[in-house]
Amino acid sequence: MRRVRRLALFSLCVNKKMTIVETQYITVANPPNELALRSGARLGPITIAYETYGKLNADKSNAILIVHAFTGDAHAAFYHKGDDKPGWWDEMIGSGRPFDTEKYFIICSNVLGSCRGTTGPASIDPKTGKPFGLSFPVITIPDMVTVQKSLIDHLGIKTLLSVAGGSMGGMQAAAWAVMYPQAIHSAVIIAACHRHTAQQIAFHEVGRQAVMADPDWQGGDYYGKTTPKRGLAVARMIGHITYMSESSMEQKFGRKLVKKDVLGYNFSKEFEVEGYLEYRGQSFVERFDANSYVYLTKAMDYFDLTENGRKLSEVLSVVTADILIISFTSDWLYPSYQSQAMLRALKANDVDVSYVELSSDYGHDAFLVEMEEQAKAVSNYLAKVYKERVS
Amino acid sequence: MRRVRRLALFSLCVNKKMTIVETQYITVANPPNELALRSGARLGPITIAYETYGKLNADKSNAILIVHAFTGDAHAAFYHKGDDKPGWWDEMIGSGRPFDTEKYFIICSNVLGSCRGTTGPASIDPKTGKPFGLSFPVITIPDMVTVQKSLIDHLGIKTLLSVAGGSMGGMQAAAWAVMYPQAIHSAVIIAACHRHTAQQIAFHEVGRQAVMADPDWQGGDYYGKTTPKRGLAVARMIGHITYMSESSMEQKFGRKLVKKDVLGYNFSKEFEVEGYLEYRGQSFVERFDANSYVYLTKAMDYFDLTENGRKLSEVLSVVTADILIISFTSDWLYPSYQSQAMLRALKANDVDVSYVELSSDYGHDAFLVEMEEQAKAVSNYLAKVYKERVS
Repeated sequence: MRRVRRLALFSLCVNKKMTIVETQYITVANPPNELALRSGARLGPITIAYETYGKLNADKSNAILIVHAFTGDAHAAFYHKGDDKPGWWDEMIGSGRPFDTEKYFIICSNVLGSCRGTTGPASIDPKTGKPFGLSFPVITIPDMVTVQKSLIDHLGIKTLLSVAGGSMGGMQAAAWAVMYPQAIHSAVIIAACHRHTAQQIAFHEVGRQAVMADPDWQGGDYYGKTTPKRGLAVARMIGHITYMSESSMEQKFGRKLVKKDVLGYNFSKEFEVEGYLEYRGQSFVERFDANSYVYLTKAMDYFDLTENGRKLSEVLSVVTADILIISFTSDWLYPSYQSQAMLRALKANDVDVSYVELSSDYGHDAFLVEMEEQAKAVSNYLAKVYKERVS
Repeated sequence: MRRVRRLALFSLCVNKKMTIVETQYITVANPPNELALRSGARLGPITIAYETYGKLNADKSNAILIVHAFTGDAHAAFYHKGDDKPGWWDEMIGSGRPFDTEKYFIICSNVLGSCRGTTGPASIDPKTGKPFGLSFPVITIPDMVTVQKSLIDHLGIKTLLSVAGGSMGGMQAAAWAVMYPQAIHSAVIIAACHRHTAQQIAFHEVGRQAVMADPDWQGGDYYGKTTPKRGLAVARMIGHITYMSESSMEQKFGRKLVKKDVLGYNFSKEFEVEGYLEYRGQSFVERFDANSYVYLTKAMDYFDLTENGRKLSEVLSVVTADILIISFTSDWLYPSYQSQAMLRALKANDVDVSYVELSSDYGHDAFLVEMEEQAKAVSNYLAKVYKERVS
């Protein structure tokens, strides 16, 4: 039997009372001060979409940056006006929750290259007046972090209490610890890695090829025309298989049929798992831009803290933040051994590092759905860091 | 360090001396005696492509049927005229090899629904004079086995010494044991399962959707026109990720770059693993029919010895053959626990069953490349069965 670990819905209603939040925007890297990207290209101006929850205290010591995963956005918690669903990590953020808005000032921004408010390939290139498409420069995880640092500077925050995120968010948190060691007291790295493996690259490459094989992709120049929905849906379907564990898929779907008890002997969606993948693919193409899919997967594939042949322990020797690493037992996309490699290299540098491997059947999705234990670990950890480093 | 387990090339050259073999053909299920398929549809005539190696002995007691995997064919061993590559399981078949052609009469036929000689969706429908396309009936693993039984009958063989195969071949071997218990002395079920799980169905469904999303698929009616190469290549790329283990992919490719030591910051094939997947996808579309891809994956997804709510131990109670089950430690597509479920159910029925879990890094591909231990296990097993059941 699978235990239900989500926080009770009761708690959701009482605490949140459908608090309405709004996304805010700033523009940074205005010419001639464009952002110098890792690729050598320069990009600017850059719009950053972000949200904040809670209040920044007088000495600006209670700010936490939440960094989102691949297809996430700045809307991490609470409700947008008219929405009946809250932000993507709502169960972790709010009064009395791990990212406690009574204590902390929470910031979440959409990443560079996305399509959810921050500048990305679907944005208008000021030089041409048309969407960038593939003329958008290839961006990296460190580039995302540099843009986030601009936002933190804009908010007048010198040192973040923490940077926290799962999956691609965990990669950003790890990059923060290396790139801006003095600007963070801690980092929470969940279900992530310090470098993409061949298999992780392979799954992304197949997704990109699915998008690019769609004639509607048109070399990325599809804005205002038919979009590559079929290819993007296939790419997303592949992703969803890797986000679940074999076991959770079996428990949820098994060989259950959609409509009837007998096989149809045709190519309709017969198995529930087929219908689920179709639903996930179709709903994704309504909300996500195919080029952002291509650019963000590439950014993850490029992610390698040990690039240029450096040793991980050498790279992590600059880390001064306190680090919490969390992985999940059934996550085969970002397996625990990757978290443990970071743990070992941090320990070798005498960094204050804690590691928790949480038992879960949910696979990689666990960081979004396996709340109880994760909430405890994060809550205790933030209280500890605040006590040790700030108060 | 990975141990090299392939049989030495030396052995290949000495034993085989480029023995030339030819595919043969018979036609069965001629109207009005069409084959009654599991779906209720009837199909005939059916051409069967097959090859044989070695000699059938006088009492026809030394015949072994090799059943191939998904994209395999009847050409299991030796060389076709002009080829410089032997058949797909050549290292297992020949003089002094596990399927010893000095002792045994080896038969291998292409499965129903394939595109490699046996009737499938690319074949001409005699009723219309045009390729079947999607008017080809949905076929199942048991339908493949029924067609193989026709071939065995045609060859005048009452009881096979063994039926042996890996992956989809293992499913056929398991189906033989249940469908024709009196017609086989033994079955060798390698890297297979008794029913497809949700994750196995999911990977296949994504592959089918990749094919069907290609506008060139044209509802399966693409013969003589542009074929859905882009979609089929994507489908095959997904497959190849599942055939390798994470570890073998990391050892083979890691983050190695194709051409140079620095990242290109573009969407060319930069990582070796990307180039490998492209190569695999491209070479596949030259040799395989997209509709066969769709039909054969569906046949595997339908495979469930426990269909209609029956218990596996009940289904396997009819088995009288001696069974050898082999799985590989790193095979995450058909994990060992699936083999072990069959083992337990056979043991519960007091069937003579042996199980070997071989240590390998190669993932599901191990049954095609991890030869040394597999060869020993099969060789000893066949000798035992021949001694106990025939001589």
